[in-house]
Amino acid sequence: MKHPLSNPPPSEGEGEGGGKGGSVIEIDFKKGDGLIPVIIQDASTHEILMLGYMNREAWEKTLKTNRATFWSRSRKKLWLKGETSGHFQEVKEIYLDCDGDTLLLKVDQMGGAACHMGFRSCFHHRYEEGRWEVSGERIFDPKEVYGE
Amino acid sequence: MKHPLSNPPPSEGEGEGGGKGGSVIEIDFKKGDGLIPVIIQDASTHEILMLGYMNREAWEKTLKTNRATFWSRSRKKLWLKGETSGHFQEVKEIYLDCDGDTLLLKVDQMGGAACHMGFRSCFHHRYEEGRWEVSGERIFDPKEVYGE
Repeated sequence: MKHPLSNPPPSEGEGEGGGKGGSVIEIDFKKGDGLIPVIIQDASTHEILMLGYMNREAWEKTLKTNRATFWSRSRKKLWLKGETSGHFQEVKEIYLDCDGDTLLLKVDQMGGAACHMGFRSCFHHRYEEGRWEVSGERIFDPKEVYGE
Repeated sequence: MKHPLSNPPPSEGEGEGGGKGGSVIEIDFKKGDGLIPVIIQDASTHEILMLGYMNREAWEKTLKTNRATFWSRSRKKLWLKGETSGHFQEVKEIYLDCDGDTLLLKVDQMGGAACHMGFRSCFHHRYEEGRWEVSGERIFDPKEVYGE
């Protein structure tokens, strides 16, 4: 039987990878030079906590350990989220988008805060009347977690 | 008075841009060669609908029209989401992350579906026991919206 998604429609925008439809899809590490953006969402509150990047090694380590591991673009090495702070991200669910070029992880955020600046979410600047205003809840004092 | 975030802690991973702390932050289009990833979240259900990319022009057009406009990496041109389908995304809230290199838009999704394949969300492949299984709600038949 032909899969209902085997002939996807003409793509709108980024959807050109749609020919892979159905469950015959793989992570496309090629489009981003070996890296794929990974959205991290709190599994309970549904808040967006951060966006990181994974290469294949980070992806495989995440699967193996069930804790989010990223590729740090600035430090150019694997980065187990929480390795310094203890604020690990326990992976509850994993989703891939229709192009295979973005991951979404629903996690339990240890310590209640994902941002190294002490906020629950890295997205704590809200656009209001042409300015970025700090918003969101600050959970910890960065100095106490990372030192002076 | 010194802003409490003016001396951010040593960064963990991607957080190196933290020196911009407080509300003195700008979108960093340079890190991604002129493009910034944009997470699109349903303002009501908090579901992640898709991830797109904006250049400065797409960002400014989004602000001006209050409808999400992206840069299509494959078509290499501005892409008003919904221009073909009518499934526009009305922007309700905008957030920037602590590095200034990722945007989060909370939107009202016209038509109830963001994905060109007819699903509410582009993230309709769920990882289960080593496979990507199709999940999520299919709202429309792509053939009826985009034609055969």
